[in-house]
Amino acid sequence: MRIEPAAALAAFPLSARAQSLRSSAVRDLLRDAQRPGMLSLAGGLPAPELFDVDGLRDATDAVMRDAPATALQYGVTDGQPGLRAELATLLAARGVVTDAGSIVVTTGSQQGLDVIARAVVDPGDRVAVESPAYLAALQVFTLSQARFVAVPVDADGARVDTLIDGDAPPPKLVYLVTNFGNPSGATLSRERRLRLLQWAVAHRVLLLEDDPYGELRVSGQAQPSLFELAGDIPGARELVVYLSSLSKVMAPGLRIGFAVLPPWLREAVVKVKQSLDLHTSTFVQEVAARYLASGRLAERMPRMREVYRERRDALVDALGRRLDGCLRFNRPDGGMFVWARFVDGTDSAALLPAARELDMIYVPGEAFYDEAPDRSALRLSFATATAEQLDAAVARLARAHGAHRAG
Amino acid sequence: MRIEPAAALAAFPLSARAQSLRSSAVRDLLRDAQRPGMLSLAGGLPAPELFDVDGLRDATDAVMRDAPATALQYGVTDGQPGLRAELATLLAARGVVTDAGSIVVTTGSQQGLDVIARAVVDPGDRVAVESPAYLAALQVFTLSQARFVAVPVDADGARVDTLIDGDAPPPKLVYLVTNFGNPSGATLSRERRLRLLQWAVAHRVLLLEDDPYGELRVSGQAQPSLFELAGDIPGARELVVYLSSLSKVMAPGLRIGFAVLPPWLREAVVKVKQSLDLHTSTFVQEVAARYLASGRLAERMPRMREVYRERRDALVDALGRRLDGCLRFNRPDGGMFVWARFVDGTDSAALLPAARELDMIYVPGEAFYDEAPDRSALRLSFATATAEQLDAAVARLARAHGAHRAG
Repeated sequence: MRIEPAAALAAFPLSARAQSLRSSAVRDLLRDAQRPGMLSLAGGLPAPELFDVDGLRDATDAVMRDAPATALQYGVTDGQPGLRAELATLLAARGVVTDAGSIVVTTGSQQGLDVIARAVVDPGDRVAVESPAYLAALQVFTLSQARFVAVPVDADGARVDTLIDGDAPPPKLVYLVTNFGNPSGATLSRERRLRLLQWAVAHRVLLLEDDPYGELRVSGQAQPSLFELAGDIPGARELVVYLSSLSKVMAPGLRIGFAVLPPWLREAVVKVKQSLDLHTSTFVQEVAARYLASGRLAERMPRMREVYRERRDALVDALGRRLDGCLRFNRPDGGMFVWARFVDGTDSAALLPAARELDMIYVPGEAFYDEAPDRSALRLSFATATAEQLDAAVARLARAHGAHRAG
Repeated sequence: MRIEPAAALAAFPLSARAQSLRSSAVRDLLRDAQRPGMLSLAGGLPAPELFDVDGLRDATDAVMRDAPATALQYGVTDGQPGLRAELATLLAARGVVTDAGSIVVTTGSQQGLDVIARAVVDPGDRVAVESPAYLAALQVFTLSQARFVAVPVDADGARVDTLIDGDAPPPKLVYLVTNFGNPSGATLSRERRLRLLQWAVAHRVLLLEDDPYGELRVSGQAQPSLFELAGDIPGARELVVYLSSLSKVMAPGLRIGFAVLPPWLREAVVKVKQSLDLHTSTFVQEVAARYLASGRLAERMPRMREVYRERRDALVDALGRRLDGCLRFNRPDGGMFVWARFVDGTDSAALLPAARELDMIYVPGEAFYDEAPDRSALRLSFATATAEQLDAAVARLARAHGAHRAG
């Protein structure tokens, strides 16, 4: 991952890690997404009409009424005790049975990634990521100067056999989005989860399980988390970190993520986080705690899933109708993304300007690879647009594709 | 800076940088500060009774009424445009005349430090800090594996002559709290500011000016910022980063810091921040923007200064009365801290248990040094306790000191 050195930078040297960092293609596209008339399938933005504005307003009012001095003051680095207790309850409902004392609140789960990378990754350490991978994970581990080990993804998630049966020495850490991968949409099968855990114990590999989307399952059978399965494998719990977030189900603007950490790692993570931002906003932590305590999130989940199911179906149906034969794609059981590949030789990055011209954007697949990108691939989000907009966006994509092929 | 390797850690290697990190003595003492009956002069916590709860409630209500979907959604990495515009106005009143486009909002100014360290500091790079230094700066630069250059502090702030006239090659970066240093309480003189700027231009050294306390001047004459003075020195603006925060004047629980960056560095900082937490909470940014737009902060500043002036006087007077002849200390013109030294051979860390026993705590000076700590020194905060509490706390300290000397 290289950026061109700008002329002005020559005068003062950036750090080697900063020089190796590229900007996120997704976040750069977010600017385009603001353009009036634009239909963006690029971002992973939760549908804003699903935000529980009334519920969050009530929670905010309660915090400012009952405990303003706490909410506005400095707090502890590992997170407000009340929020950690609520998160433990939320997690138990997912089968992630832990206690508030094992949780660390982070400034979004993005910071969870960063703080763990900084606590365990030395420059040159090998870190395994899915290929294609969550883009911001590539950024974080690049900043830690890790070397990447690419694990291909198929319909059953990461092909962990390439790690287990390969000749290469085991990496220090494996990072996986286990449910509805970003961008792949794939979910890791139970069999692979168990194989991965057994191998991790045998080789002392740290498993970083990122699960922002697990609650957004709209079809199919849920799989137990690595964390849950690790409970039955001696030594495995020490090697699993479970990361998640309130961004997809509550509101990303709060920036509340959380990590469930084994004791040996928790202490180091808290120390590192202290250096990063002292602590996550006490105010939003208290608001989130009140909101979780209200029980409204659980009440709203069925409606949230219904909306995302309808949108997934709308996107998948439109792709099938409008780009039949040109595109191959999956039908994810949840999350926010459909991962598609042109089978007619179309380069998705080369197509983007034509789509943008028609007021439609997506993320070219190449953004999600450290190396050897699949240039035919693209990521399409069904989270933000309505069913009608998704159909219209795919119609524009099909027109852009037709024009691009003809030109 | 070393921590003892815990037994459990031997099983899985932490990164070298995490191993080199020690926990913050101040944050560890915060737990003691919660004890009922404890009089803590340890933390740098703003007086909670000065929080403008009504004003912030109004701002929060307005955000949730007028723009909930914006406040709860993902935002841009460099910060909400409305907040950056308000910050530019706030800064102009300080003589830091800049535009919203030069500002990056950070998750507290602590993150400003981290993001700049990561953008420019490579392991082994030399970074100059005051001696004694802001503790969290020592943590951040330790995490970046910098080597420290200690700049002694006297009544006129950092002795920049030790950098300018010394034989050592210039460091890559100089980090200074220019107004009412933490812990020193000292303010850098205008003459030293000018010398430092000229030297930085000649040797291409980056100056990191941290100014969280500048608005909390309670006596004496304000000095122009390095940023302001740099406007008259060709090439200097490119080498000054101005960092500040809303934590001390508005509310630390929001975690809103900000950096004014030269163009060559801003781009890199935004890219790095993207990897750290995507962006600072949109919600608190929008609340802070509304609050600043209300004009209430400016209205409240005189009262805030009045309270802190009274407290500074109370602490300084009590120290003079109750520990006369044992302690030497400054009378800072603002900020939150008095820096004191026992002149009777007392080791401040050794004294702490006796003070804690009497329900009084402070921070032993040794926490603020990378090496060669002054064991006679201690940091006393006058920000959180009332004048009466400050006097009572110093009475306890004097009793503890007497008992310690006798024992």
